[in-house]
Amino acid sequence: MEVLHMFGSEEQKKKWLEPLLRGEIRSCFCMTEPGVPSSDEANMECILHRDEEDYVINSTKWWCSGAGNPKCKVAVVMCRMNLFLRHGQHSMILVPMETPGVKLIRPLTVFGQDDAIHGGHFEVHFENVRVPASNIILGEGRGFEIAQRRLGPGRLHHSMRAVGLAEHALELLCQRAASRQTFGKKLHQHEVVAHWIAESRLMIEQTRLLTLYAAHSLDTLGSRAARKQVAMIKVAAARMSCKVVDIAIQYSYARTLRIADGPDEVHLSSIASLELKDQLRKSQAKL
Amino acid sequence: MEVLHMFGSEEQKKKWLEPLLRGEIRSCFCMTEPGVPSSDEANMECILHRDEEDYVINSTKWWCSGAGNPKCKVAVVMCRMNLFLRHGQHSMILVPMETPGVKLIRPLTVFGQDDAIHGGHFEVHFENVRVPASNIILGEGRGFEIAQRRLGPGRLHHSMRAVGLAEHALELLCQRAASRQTFGKKLHQHEVVAHWIAESRLMIEQTRLLTLYAAHSLDTLGSRAARKQVAMIKVAAARMSCKVVDIAIQYSYARTLRIADGPDEVHLSSIASLELKDQLRKSQAKL
Amino acid sequence: MEVLHMFGSEEQKKKWLEPLLRGEIRSCFCMTEPGVPSSDEANMECILHRDEEDYVINSTKWWCSGAGNPKCKVAVVMCRMNLFLRHGQHSMILVPMETPGVKLIRPLTVFGQDDAIHGGHFEVHFENVRVPASNIILGEGRGFEIAQRRLGPGRLHHSMRAVGLAEHALELLCQRAASRQTFGKKLHQHEVVAHWIAESRLMIEQTRLLTLYAAHSLDTLGSRAARKQVAMIKVAAARMSCKVVDIAIQYSYARTLRIADGPDEVHLSSIASLELKDQLRKSQAKL
Amino acid sequence: MEVLHMFGSEEQKKKWLEPLLRGEIRSCFCMTEPGVPSSDEANMECILHRDEEDYVINSTKWWCSGAGNPKCKVAVVMCRMNLFLRHGQHSMILVPMETPGVKLIRPLTVFGQDDAIHGGHFEVHFENVRVPASNIILGEGRGFEIAQRRLGPGRLHHSMRAVGLAEHALELLCQRAASRQTFGKKLHQHEVVAHWIAESRLMIEQTRLLTLYAAHSLDTLGSRAARKQVAMIKVAAARMSCKVVDIAIQYSYARTLRIADGPDEVHLSSIASLELKDQLRKSQAKL
Repeated sequence: MEVLHMFGSEEQKKKWLEPLLRGEIRSCFCMTEPGVPSSDEANMECILHRDEEDYVINSTKWWCSGAGNPKCKVAVVMCRMNLFLRHGQHSMILVPMETPGVKLIRPLTVFGQDDAIHGGHFEVHFENVRVPASNIILGEGRGFEIAQRRLGPGRLHHSMRAVGLAEHALELLCQRAASRQTFGKKLHQHEVVAHWIAESRLMIEQTRLLTLYAAHSLDTLGSRAARKQVAMIKVAAARMSCKVVDIAIQYSYARTLRIADGPDEVHLSSIASLELKDQLRKSQAKL
Repeated sequence: MEVLHMFGSEEQKKKWLEPLLRGEIRSCFCMTEPGVPSSDEANMECILHRDEEDYVINSTKWWCSGAGNPKCKVAVVMCRMNLFLRHGQHSMILVPMETPGVKLIRPLTVFGQDDAIHGGHFEVHFENVRVPASNIILGEGRGFEIAQRRLGPGRLHHSMRAVGLAEHALELLCQRAASRQTFGKKLHQHEVVAHWIAESRLMIEQTRLLTLYAAHSLDTLGSRAARKQVAMIKVAAARMSCKVVDIAIQYSYARTLRIADGPDEVHLSSIASLELKDQLRKSQAKL
Repeated sequence: MEVLHMFGSEEQKKKWLEPLLRGEIRSCFCMTEPGVPSSDEANMECILHRDEEDYVINSTKWWCSGAGNPKCKVAVVMCRMNLFLRHGQHSMILVPMETPGVKLIRPLTVFGQDDAIHGGHFEVHFENVRVPASNIILGEGRGFEIAQRRLGPGRLHHSMRAVGLAEHALELLCQRAASRQTFGKKLHQHEVVAHWIAESRLMIEQTRLLTLYAAHSLDTLGSRAARKQVAMIKVAAARMSCKVVDIAIQYSYARTLRIADGPDEVHLSSIASLELKDQLRKSQAKL
Repeated sequence: MEVLHMFGSEEQKKKWLEPLLRGEIRSCFCMTEPGVPSSDEANMECILHRDEEDYVINSTKWWCSGAGNPKCKVAVVMCRMNLFLRHGQHSMILVPMETPGVKLIRPLTVFGQDDAIHGGHFEVHFENVRVPASNIILGEGRGFEIAQRRLGPGRLHHSMRAVGLAEHALELLCQRAASRQTFGKKLHQHEVVAHWIAESRLMIEQTRLLTLYAAHSLDTLGSRAARKQVAMIKVAAARMSCKVVDIAIQYSYARTLRIADGPDEVHLSSIASLELKDQLRKSQAKL
């Protein structure tokens, strides 16, 4: 939606953005390709060529989030016109899902889950898919520019969700720690668990403030000047939310290996007490 | 099997251990209980009472691994005779799965997976389950002792599997890094990826040697003297395998958040280059 | 100065605060005691007793920063009136340095440095030191309260200095990385060094924002409501500045062990290349 | 000594190795140069040229450990004959300290300490220093080869010392934790301190085993085959000893910032208790 809102023509907005905003239809975004590392956009292999009044697309895309949703009616597809030039030549084009040649191959799973409720993450093939030239967004060769300008806000959203997720995990951790009991005291009365709570709050707070700062920079300085801040929250938010959830899970769910057969914390306590005994024995032997 | 091999009576061995060793049947182990933190065994609530020539068991257990396997014919159940005494009073008893009152409630999932192929991890209820007194292992009140003496070897197996898992992950990471290309060079030619490989080998090697050392201590000094070594590998192996798999996954699978929208490494490179520019501009301004 | 400004009587302010503000004299703060862990204030052993119109102080203090400065004319001393009550009974009292019984024993060193330029960190003994009753600050038994209310701003200052220190270290790191060359390229062109720069900026930025947030909370909500924020920056700033300086030092100074005999980064690169060769050999052997 | 023992001629051994082994004299090793990053040996700028029966050396070296010891009678100097070839052309040569042109410029300090007791780390200049051709070790152009073959054992020694240092730090930590009391219990009864002890033992044990393994590889497979193991301990031992000493110092010495104004652990406990209160208040507000 953001792409159409920022870069769509009047006609494109009327046809796709309006029903999207009304919630009548959904869209999906087709960028990543199997076989090539897509963090380097120069690797992209989706071929777009002009054929009179049409464009023809040939490509294999995957991780197209939401493509399996029955309400998904249109794909935004990132293509290239010339594979020999390393940069430029990227274009973004609108492809209605019912266009002949668009094939939903299979849903992919993320760590074993298919996110069916959101429409999954699909492998989608485009075989000689033909769309009118007016479907191109902003113009030929401007795909990379669109992607860049759209990424700032998108990354902010990722970070905001990651902060929210971590806040929720910390809330669950605190509730668990206040209600459950081991070795004669509540979990939160175990210093190690208390320090987890403190470390989680510290990480969340730092990332929350950095996200607000990046959002402020984006609003006041624009996406180019805010690049450093945006890249920082991309890294910080993902990392922080993984750590906080990892801490919270220690007592909220069963996580194999670190939990099975006694949580690591019990083992660390037992190593410590055995080590202390060994050391004291040694220091007495010296007398 | 280990429990029966080490502590079973001749009759118990004949009836259960032999078909287990022949692979004709499977067993499951019922220890963890819902509602109580089972890393503190004093929390256990499974009640065993003597009724003339029988024992009667009432309990709710879960995370009984393998209980859903059709070949699973017998459960080893950890119970207590007296909930008022904090220690002791734990007993281990053999319960044939077809005994009236044994109910498989539902398979539980571990991070969304049910491990159906191994027989899953089940919630199992025991309602007035009656077994002959001879089913007790080693004797009343000796359950905790059995658990302790059995844990050393069990934890070694966990660590060995964790080392193997990490070795496999590193192998996949190396193959990927040697074959895939971004920004004009192979992944392994990116220093950051090369250092991941080095860090993984370092962690695996240290844990592998510690596991061998613990195994050697267990064999030569016995399980009591090897407690510190065993506790150390329990912690080290779980932690190491999580880290190595986490590193390997960076390029082997898609992991959301840290991967989506460009892997963190690309963002770190971009933060660095922007920071350098800012710093150099600042230092020139000083002149 | 902060203590006198916030809690001093008119007479105390006139006598000590004014020359302090004019820079004519300096003060020192005597709190920590040898032999007892002073992070728990209940451990404090400095005895204050009332003797008609005077107070008499007996104590051994150390880490009295600035006590050796020739301009240091007055000490603020934390004492207790009653060692049997765990809390309360703490009082803060002004002791002119030339009072009989005040003895500067020796300067202590911090990691081998004596900070002589600031007046060092001294061990100071108080033997039957007698001062008029009007020297007590705010009143008997209010020492703990003064300490608490003064700590918020003090911790903010620590954090601000830590952020400044880290900024300076990053600046030096960037200059070094832009000017020095190894293995055919500038240091900053080595990905691993570039990522250090990025990680440093990320840590500094998060701590800087948290410090600003704590300062804002302190100003708008008061020191009691801001306790959590203040405790967070105390932890975050110390930890962050240690990490950033540690990174920066890698190429700015010689640090033994991690530097001597080739920096760790060179060794990690060599482990990685050997590991890759081993893995590739293994995977070819499988064919 | 190792260099002479492995690569010295009979004459060199007789003249220098024998008095070294008898402890009558000391030697120093001159490799690192100011201005160039010496982890890349291609940067070295010490010039050696042949002049009939002599070699003439011109160079500025620093971090020459032990050069200031009054018993230091000979330097082993790493030079190059040709600065235009990137590799090879390195030679090692023996230079008696009293040779005209050898100048001890100044002792350097490592983190503020000059290690005077061991002879310090000196900047040494060589100005047209002339020695007989027979002083070259092993032959022209073989300096790099000598350095490589000598490094394995040298790195083992570093690791062994690092393990010993960490063992000593852990011993001190245990003694302190068993004797000192805060908040109503011994330090080791604080779970967080207990876990430090456990983590330290874990790190030491893993590094100790890896060091033994590297030593075994070096003895049985030779220095070339053991390169990976040797590089691993170089990294692991430095890192481990820094961490263990850092943990141990928390309560053994005063370390500014993380200690001053209350150790971080006290602050983490206070953040945790405030966070818990906030969370519980929030969850009650929801009812």
